[in-house]
Amino acid sequence: MSSNKDIESLIEMMARLPGLGPRSARRAVLQLVRKRDLLLLPLADLMHQVGVSVRECETCGNLASSPLCDICISPKRAGPEICVVEDVADLWAMERGGSFRGRYHVLGGTLSALDSIGPEDLKIPKLVQRVADESVREVILALNATVDGQTTAHYIADQLEGKVRMTSLAQGVPIGGELDYLDDGTISAALRARKDI
Amino acid sequence: MSSNKDIESLIEMMARLPGLGPRSARRAVLQLVRKRDLLLLPLADLMHQVGVSVRECETCGNLASSPLCDICISPKRAGPEICVVEDVADLWAMERGGSFRGRYHVLGGTLSALDSIGPEDLKIPKLVQRVADESVREVILALNATVDGQTTAHYIADQLEGKVRMTSLAQGVPIGGELDYLDDGTISAALRARKDI
Repeated sequence: MSSNKDIESLIEMMARLPGLGPRSARRAVLQLVRKRDLLLLPLADLMHQVGVSVRECETCGNLASSPLCDICISPKRAGPEICVVEDVADLWAMERGGSFRGRYHVLGGTLSALDSIGPEDLKIPKLVQRVADESVREVILALNATVDGQTTAHYIADQLEGKVRMTSLAQGVPIGGELDYLDDGTISAALRARKDI
Repeated sequence: MSSNKDIESLIEMMARLPGLGPRSARRAVLQLVRKRDLLLLPLADLMHQVGVSVRECETCGNLASSPLCDICISPKRAGPEICVVEDVADLWAMERGGSFRGRYHVLGGTLSALDSIGPEDLKIPKLVQRVADESVREVILALNATVDGQTTAHYIADQLEGKVRMTSLAQGVPIGGELDYLDDGTISAALRARKDI
Protein backbone atom coordinates (compact mmCIF):
# COMPACT_ATOMS: atom_id res chain seq x y z
CA MET A 1 0.00 0.00 0.00
CA SER A 2 2.78 2.40 0.92
CA SER A 3 5.08 0.65 -1.57
CA ASN A 4 7.84 0.30 1.02
CA LYS A 5 8.29 -2.86 3.09
CA ASP A 6 9.80 -1.25 6.20
CA ILE A 7 7.13 1.42 6.35
CA GLU A 8 4.45 -1.22 5.79
CA SER A 9 5.79 -3.38 8.64
CA LEU A 10 6.04 -0.35 10.91
CA ILE A 11 2.42 0.61 10.21
CA GLU A 12 1.32 -2.97 10.85
CA MET A 13 3.17 -3.12 14.17
CA MET A 14 1.97 0.32 15.31
CA ALA A 15 -1.60 -0.74 14.53
CA ARG A 16 -1.26 -3.45 17.20
CA LEU A 17 -1.01 -0.82 19.94
CA PRO A 18 -4.22 -0.20 21.89
CA GLY A 19 -5.93 2.98 20.71
CA LEU A 20 -4.42 2.82 17.22
CA GLY A 21 -6.04 1.18 14.21
CA PRO A 22 -4.62 0.81 10.68
CA ARG A 23 -5.67 4.33 9.75
CA SER A 24 -4.27 6.14 12.78
CA ALA A 25 -1.15 3.96 12.63
CA ARG A 26 -0.55 5.27 9.09
CA ARG A 27 -0.93 8.86 10.30
CA ALA A 28 1.40 8.18 13.23
CA VAL A 29 4.05 6.61 11.00
CA LEU A 30 3.92 9.54 8.57
CA GLN A 31 4.38 11.92 11.49
CA LEU A 32 7.29 9.82 12.73
CA VAL A 33 9.00 9.85 9.34
CA ARG A 34 8.48 13.60 9.01
CA LYS A 35 10.01 14.19 12.42
CA ARG A 36 12.83 11.72 11.99
CA ASP A 37 15.38 13.42 14.25
CA LEU A 38 12.97 14.90 16.77
CA LEU A 39 10.65 11.94 17.22
CA LEU A 40 11.39 8.74 15.28
CA LEU A 41 15.02 8.11 16.24
CA PRO A 42 14.71 9.29 19.88
CA LEU A 43 11.58 7.15 20.25
CA ALA A 44 13.39 4.12 18.81
CA ASP A 45 16.28 4.64 21.24
CA LEU A 46 13.98 5.14 24.21
CA MET A 47 11.95 2.03 23.35
CA HIS A 48 15.14 0.02 23.07
CA GLN A 49 16.34 1.36 26.42
CA VAL A 50 13.03 0.60 28.13
CA GLY A 51 12.98 -2.85 26.52
CA VAL A 52 16.46 -3.62 27.81
CA SER A 53 16.36 -2.01 31.24
CA VAL A 54 12.80 -2.01 32.57
CA ARG A 55 11.83 -5.09 34.57
CA GLU A 56 9.37 -5.92 37.33
CA CYS A 57 10.38 -4.73 40.79
CA GLU A 58 11.42 -7.84 42.74
CA THR A 59 9.44 -6.76 45.77
CA CYS A 60 6.23 -5.18 44.54
CA GLY A 61 5.88 -5.96 40.82
CA ASN A 62 5.92 -2.29 39.72
CA LEU A 63 8.01 -1.39 36.65
CA ALA A 64 11.61 -0.62 37.55
CA SER A 65 14.96 0.05 35.90
CA SER A 66 16.81 -1.54 38.82
CA PRO A 67 15.98 -4.70 40.83
CA LEU A 68 13.79 -2.59 43.13
CA CYS A 69 11.45 0.16 41.91
CA ASP A 70 11.76 3.81 42.91
CA ILE A 71 8.84 3.52 45.34
CA CYS A 72 10.27 0.49 47.16
CA ILE A 73 13.69 2.20 47.38
CA SER A 74 12.35 5.56 48.62
CA PRO A 75 12.66 6.00 52.41
CA LYS A 76 9.73 8.45 52.22
CA ARG A 77 7.45 5.59 51.14
CA ALA A 78 8.52 3.21 53.94
CA GLY A 79 5.20 3.47 55.78
CA PRO A 80 3.47 0.53 57.44
CA GLU A 81 0.79 0.30 54.71
CA ILE A 82 0.83 -1.81 51.55
CA CYS A 83 -1.67 -1.01 48.83
CA VAL A 84 -2.62 -4.07 46.75
CA VAL A 85 -3.53 -3.34 43.11
CA GLU A 86 -4.32 -5.54 40.13
CA ASP A 87 -1.79 -4.17 37.68
CA VAL A 88 0.66 -1.37 37.01
CA ALA A 89 -2.02 0.82 35.39
CA ASP A 90 -3.92 0.79 38.71
CA LEU A 91 -0.70 1.67 40.56
CA TRP A 92 -0.29 4.66 38.24
CA ALA A 93 -3.91 5.67 38.85
CA MET A 94 -3.34 5.56 42.63
CA GLU A 95 -0.15 7.61 42.22
CA ARG A 96 -2.04 10.21 40.18
CA GLY A 97 -4.44 10.47 43.12
CA GLY A 98 -1.35 11.50 45.09
CA SER A 99 -2.81 10.65 48.52
CA PHE A 100 -1.18 7.30 49.23
CA ARG A 101 2.34 7.57 50.65
CA GLY A 102 3.07 3.90 51.36
CA ARG A 103 4.24 1.03 49.16
CA TYR A 104 2.40 -1.12 46.64
CA HIS A 105 1.93 -4.72 45.77
CA VAL A 106 1.01 -5.42 42.14
CA LEU A 107 -0.80 -8.76 41.81
CA GLY A 108 -0.49 -9.00 38.06
CA GLY A 109 -4.17 -9.74 37.48
CA THR A 110 -7.14 -11.20 39.33
CA LEU A 111 -8.24 -14.70 40.20
CA SER A 112 -10.39 -16.02 37.39
CA ALA A 113 -11.91 -19.46 37.16
CA LEU A 114 -12.85 -18.88 33.52
CA ASP A 115 -9.26 -18.06 32.49
CA SER A 116 -7.95 -20.64 35.03
CA ILE A 117 -5.88 -18.06 36.88
CA GLY A 118 -5.21 -19.31 40.41
CA PRO A 119 -3.45 -17.72 43.41
CA GLU A 120 -0.07 -19.14 42.35
CA ASP A 121 -0.37 -17.33 38.98
CA LEU A 122 -0.64 -14.02 40.83
CA LYS A 123 1.70 -12.51 43.40
CA ILE A 124 -0.56 -13.53 46.31
CA PRO A 125 1.96 -15.89 48.02
CA LYS A 126 4.54 -13.10 47.72
CA LEU A 127 2.10 -10.71 49.41
CA VAL A 128 1.56 -13.14 52.30
CA GLN A 129 5.32 -13.42 52.62
CA ARG A 130 5.79 -9.62 52.61
CA VAL A 131 3.21 -9.26 55.36
CA ALA A 132 5.12 -11.83 57.41
CA ASP A 133 8.59 -10.39 56.70
CA GLU A 134 8.06 -6.62 56.63
CA SER A 135 6.59 -4.56 59.44
CA VAL A 136 3.26 -4.15 57.66
CA ARG A 137 0.39 -2.86 59.78
CA GLU A 138 -2.28 -2.35 57.12
CA VAL A 139 -3.06 -3.92 53.74
CA ILE A 140 -5.29 -1.71 51.58
CA LEU A 141 -7.07 -3.77 48.94
CA ALA A 142 -7.46 -1.33 46.03
CA LEU A 143 -8.87 -3.90 43.61
CA ASN A 144 -11.39 -3.07 40.91
CA ALA A 145 -15.05 -3.24 41.90
CA THR A 146 -15.62 -6.07 39.41
CA VAL A 147 -16.61 -9.66 40.18
CA ASP A 148 -13.07 -10.95 39.62
CA GLY A 149 -11.57 -8.05 41.57
CA GLN A 150 -13.83 -8.63 44.56
CA THR A 151 -13.32 -12.43 44.44
CA THR A 152 -9.59 -11.79 44.59
CA ALA A 153 -10.04 -9.34 47.48
CA HIS A 154 -12.02 -11.97 49.43
CA TYR A 155 -9.38 -14.62 48.79
CA ILE A 156 -6.59 -12.30 49.99
CA ALA A 157 -8.63 -11.33 53.03
CA ASP A 158 -8.96 -15.06 53.88
CA GLN A 159 -5.24 -15.62 53.49
CA LEU A 160 -4.24 -12.69 55.68
CA GLU A 161 -7.00 -13.01 58.30
CA GLY A 162 -5.71 -12.27 61.79
CA LYS A 163 -2.26 -11.36 60.55
CA VAL A 164 -2.78 -7.70 59.65
CA ARG A 165 -5.42 -4.99 59.46
CA MET A 166 -7.13 -5.06 56.07
CA THR A 167 -9.09 -2.26 54.45
CA SER A 168 -10.66 -1.65 51.06
CA LEU A 169 -11.33 1.56 49.13
CA ALA A 170 -14.62 3.25 50.03
CA GLN A 171 -17.48 2.81 47.59
CA GLY A 172 -19.92 5.60 46.90
CA VAL A 173 -20.75 8.58 44.72
CA PRO A 174 -17.72 9.69 42.63
CA ILE A 175 -16.56 13.30 43.11
CA GLY A 176 -18.54 15.38 40.60
CA GLY A 177 -20.94 12.48 40.03
CA GLU A 178 -24.64 13.09 39.48
CA LEU A 179 -27.09 10.74 41.20
CA ASP A 180 -29.29 10.60 38.12
CA TYR A 181 -26.48 9.04 36.09
CA LEU A 182 -25.29 6.55 38.72
CA ASP A 183 -26.19 2.88 38.60
CA ASP A 184 -28.50 1.48 41.31
CA GLY A 185 -25.75 -0.60 42.94
CA THR A 186 -23.56 2.42 43.53
CA ILE A 187 -26.43 4.43 45.01
CA SER A 188 -27.33 1.55 47.36
CA ALA A 189 -23.68 1.18 48.39
CA ALA A 190 -23.38 4.93 49.02
CA LEU A 191 -26.56 4.88 51.12
CA ARG A 192 -25.39 1.91 53.20
CA ALA A 193 -22.05 3.61 53.81
CA ARG A 194 -23.61 6.99 54.65
CA LYS A 195 -21.70 9.20 57.07
CA ASP A 196 -22.68 11.66 59.80
CA ILE A 197 -22.10 15.25 58.79
CA MET B 1 3.46 9.47 37.98
CA SER B 2 4.70 6.05 36.90
CA SER B 3 7.69 6.45 39.24
CA ASN B 4 10.14 5.52 36.49
CA LYS B 5 11.91 8.12 34.38
CA ASP B 6 12.33 6.05 31.21
CA ILE B 7 8.70 4.96 31.23
CA GLU B 8 7.62 8.54 31.91
CA SER B 9 9.67 9.86 28.96
CA LEU B 10 8.34 7.10 26.72
CA ILE B 11 4.74 7.95 27.61
CA GLU B 12 5.42 11.64 26.99
CA MET B 13 6.94 10.94 23.57
CA MET B 14 4.22 8.49 22.52
CA ALA B 15 1.61 11.09 23.49
CA ARG B 16 3.03 13.36 20.77
CA LEU B 17 1.88 10.95 18.05
CA PRO B 18 -1.34 11.96 16.29
CA GLY B 19 -4.27 9.96 17.61
CA LEU B 20 -2.69 9.32 21.00
CA GLY B 21 -3.19 11.48 24.08
CA PRO B 22 -1.59 11.11 27.51
CA ARG B 23 -4.12 8.47 28.55
CA SER B 24 -3.90 6.27 25.48
CA ALA B 25 -0.11 6.71 25.44
CA ARG B 26 -0.02 5.21 28.95
CA ARG B 27 -2.10 2.25 27.80
CA ALA B 28 0.11 1.80 24.74
CA VAL B 29 3.30 1.90 26.81
CA LEU B 30 1.93 -0.66 29.28
CA GLN B 31 1.06 -2.92 26.38
CA LEU B 32 4.56 -2.43 24.94
CA VAL B 33 6.22 -3.30 28.25
CA ARG B 34 4.01 -6.37 28.67
CA LYS B 35 4.89 -7.58 25.18
CA ARG B 36 8.56 -6.73 25.43
CA ASP B 37 9.89 -9.40 23.08
CA LEU B 38 6.94 -9.55 20.70
CA LEU B 39 6.28 -5.83 20.32
CA LEU B 40 8.55 -3.38 22.18
CA LEU B 41 11.98 -4.54 21.03
CA PRO B 42 10.96 -5.38 17.41
CA LEU B 43 9.21 -2.00 17.18
CA ALA B 44 12.30 -0.20 18.49
CA ASP B 45 14.48 -2.00 15.92
CA LEU B 46 12.06 -1.30 13.09
CA MET B 47 11.78 2.39 14.00
CA HIS B 48 15.56 2.65 14.09
CA GLN B 49 15.81 0.93 10.71
CA VAL B 50 13.17 3.19 9.16
CA GLY B 51 14.84 6.24 10.71
CA VAL B 52 18.19 5.29 9.25
CA SER B 53 17.16 3.96 5.84
CA VAL B 54 13.95 5.66 4.69
CA ARG B 55 14.45 8.83 2.69
CA GLU B 56 12.54 10.77 0.04
CA CYS B 57 12.67 9.26 -3.46
CA GLU B 58 14.94 11.52 -5.51
CA THR B 59 12.51 11.53 -8.41
CA CYS B 60 9.01 11.63 -6.98
CA GLY B 61 9.29 12.45 -3.26
CA ASN B 62 7.67 9.20 -2.09
CA LEU B 63 9.24 7.41 0.89
CA ALA B 64 12.00 5.04 -0.19
CA SER B 65 14.72 2.86 1.29
CA SER B 66 16.93 3.38 -1.77
CA PRO B 67 17.57 6.59 -3.78
CA LEU B 68 14.53 5.76 -5.94
CA CYS B 69 11.24 4.44 -4.52
CA ASP B 70 9.74 1.07 -5.47
CA ILE B 71 7.17 2.72 -7.74
CA CYS B 72 9.75 4.73 -9.69
CA ILE B 73 11.93 1.62 -10.07
CA SER B 74 9.12 -0.71 -11.18
CA PRO B 75 8.96 -1.22 -14.98
CA LYS B 76 5.24 -1.99 -14.57
CA ARG B 77 4.63 1.58 -13.43
CA ALA B 78 6.52 3.18 -16.32
CA GLY B 79 3.39 4.55 -17.99
CA PRO B 80 3.13 7.97 -19.61
CA GLU B 81 1.06 9.42 -16.73
CA ILE B 82 2.26 11.25 -13.65
CA CYS B 83 -0.16 11.71 -10.77
CA VAL B 84 0.56 14.84 -8.70
CA VAL B 85 -0.36 14.61 -5.00
CA GLU B 86 0.17 16.89 -2.03
CA ASP B 87 1.87 14.47 0.32
CA VAL B 88 2.74 10.84 0.91
CA ALA B 89 -0.55 10.17 2.72
CA ASP B 90 -2.39 11.10 -0.51
CA LEU B 91 -0.09 8.82 -2.52
CA TRP B 92 -1.00 5.97 -0.15
CA ALA B 93 -4.69 6.80 -0.55
CA MET B 94 -4.35 6.65 -4.37
CA GLU B 95 -2.49 3.33 -4.07
CA ARG B 96 -5.27 1.92 -1.87
CA GLY B 97 -7.68 2.82 -4.66
CA GLY B 98 -5.56 0.49 -6.78
CA SER B 99 -6.64 1.95 -10.15
CA PHE B 100 -3.66 4.13 -11.02
CA ARG B 101 -0.77 2.25 -12.62
CA GLY B 102 1.56 5.14 -13.44
CA ARG B 103 4.05 7.10 -11.35
CA TYR B 104 3.61 9.85 -8.80
CA HIS B 105 4.96 13.26 -7.97
CA VAL B 106 4.68 14.30 -4.32
CA LEU B 107 4.68 18.10 -3.96
CA GLY B 108 5.26 18.12 -0.22
CA GLY B 109 2.42 20.53 0.52
CA THR B 110 0.38 23.23 -1.17
CA LEU B 111 1.01 26.85 -2.07
CA SER B 112 -0.11 28.99 0.83
CA ALA B 113 0.18 32.76 1.06
CA LEU B 114 -0.71 32.66 4.76
CA ASP B 115 2.11 30.25 5.61
CA SER B 116 4.33 31.92 2.93
CA ILE B 117 4.86 28.66 1.03
CA GLY B 118 5.83 29.47 -2.56
CA PRO B 119 6.46 27.26 -5.62
CA GLU B 120 10.16 26.91 -4.77
CA ASP B 121 9.26 25.44 -1.36
CA LEU B 122 7.34 22.66 -3.11
CA LYS B 123 8.55 20.23 -5.76
CA ILE B 124 6.89 22.21 -8.59
CA PRO B 125 10.12 23.11 -10.47
CA LYS B 126 11.10 19.44 -10.26
CA LEU B 127 7.72 18.49 -11.77
CA VAL B 128 8.21 20.90 -14.69
CA GLN B 129 11.65 19.38 -15.22
CA ARG B 130 10.26 15.81 -15.12
CA VAL B 131 7.65 16.71 -17.74
CA ALA B 132 10.43 18.08 -19.97
CA ASP B 133 12.84 15.17 -19.39
CA GLU B 134 10.60 12.10 -19.21
CA SER B 135 8.17 10.99 -21.89
CA VAL B 136 5.16 12.20 -19.93
CA ARG B 137 1.89 12.42 -21.86
CA GLU B 138 -0.53 13.22 -19.03
CA VAL B 139 -0.28 14.95 -15.67
CA ILE B 140 -3.17 14.04 -13.32
CA LEU B 141 -3.62 16.69 -10.65
CA ALA B 142 -4.95 14.71 -7.64
CA LEU B 143 -4.84 17.62 -5.22
CA ASN B 144 -7.27 18.04 -2.36
CA ALA B 145 -10.47 19.94 -3.16
CA THR B 146 -9.50 22.68 -0.70
CA VAL B 147 -8.74 26.32 -1.48
CA ASP B 148 -4.98 25.79 -1.15
CA GLY B 149 -5.11 22.55 -3.12
CA GLN B 150 -7.02 24.13 -5.99
CA THR B 151 -4.77 27.24 -5.99
CA THR B 152 -1.79 24.92 -6.34
CA ALA B 153 -3.51 23.00 -9.15
CA HIS B 154 -4.13 26.26 -11.06
CA TYR B 155 -0.53 27.33 -10.62
CA ILE B 156 0.78 23.99 -11.91
CA ALA B 157 -1.65 24.12 -14.83
CA ASP B 158 -0.24 27.56 -15.73
CA GLN B 159 3.33 26.30 -15.56
CA LEU B 160 2.72 23.26 -17.74
CA GLU B 161 0.27 24.84 -20.19
CA GLY B 162 0.82 23.61 -23.73
CA LYS B 163 3.52 21.17 -22.69
CA VAL B 164 1.39 18.18 -21.69
CA ARG B 165 -2.21 17.05 -21.27
CA MET B 166 -3.47 17.90 -17.80
CA THR B 167 -6.44 16.35 -16.00
CA SER B 168 -7.90 16.52 -12.53
CA LEU B 169 -9.91 14.01 -10.48
CA ALA B 170 -13.64 14.08 -11.17
CA GLN B 171 -15.80 15.82 -8.59
CA GLY B 172 -19.23 14.51 -7.69
CA VAL B 173 -21.23 12.28 -5.39
CA PRO B 174 -18.98 9.84 -3.48
CA ILE B 175 -19.71 6.12 -3.91
CA GLY B 176 -22.27 5.22 -1.24
CA GLY B 177 -22.96 8.90 -0.58
CA GLU B 178 -26.45 10.12 0.21
CA LEU B 179 -27.61 13.38 -1.42
CA ASP B 180 -29.26 14.52 1.80
CA TYR B 181 -25.90 14.54 3.60
CA LEU B 182 -23.86 16.17 0.83
CA ASP B 183 -22.90 19.83 0.90
CA ASP B 184 -24.45 22.17 -1.69
CA GLY B 185 -21.16 22.72 -3.55
CA THR B 186 -20.71 19.01 -4.21
CA ILE B 187 -24.29 18.62 -5.46
CA SER B 188 -23.85 21.59 -7.83
CA ALA B 189 -20.53 20.19 -9.09
CA ALA B 190 -22.09 16.76 -9.64
CA LEU B 191 -25.01 18.32 -11.54
CA ARG B 192 -22.73 20.40 -13.79
CA ALA B 193 -20.63 17.30 -14.55
CA ARG B 194 -23.67 15.07 -15.21
CA LYS B 195 -23.23 12.22 -17.67
CA ASP B 196 -25.44 10.52 -20.27
CA ILE B 197 -26.56 7.08 -19.16
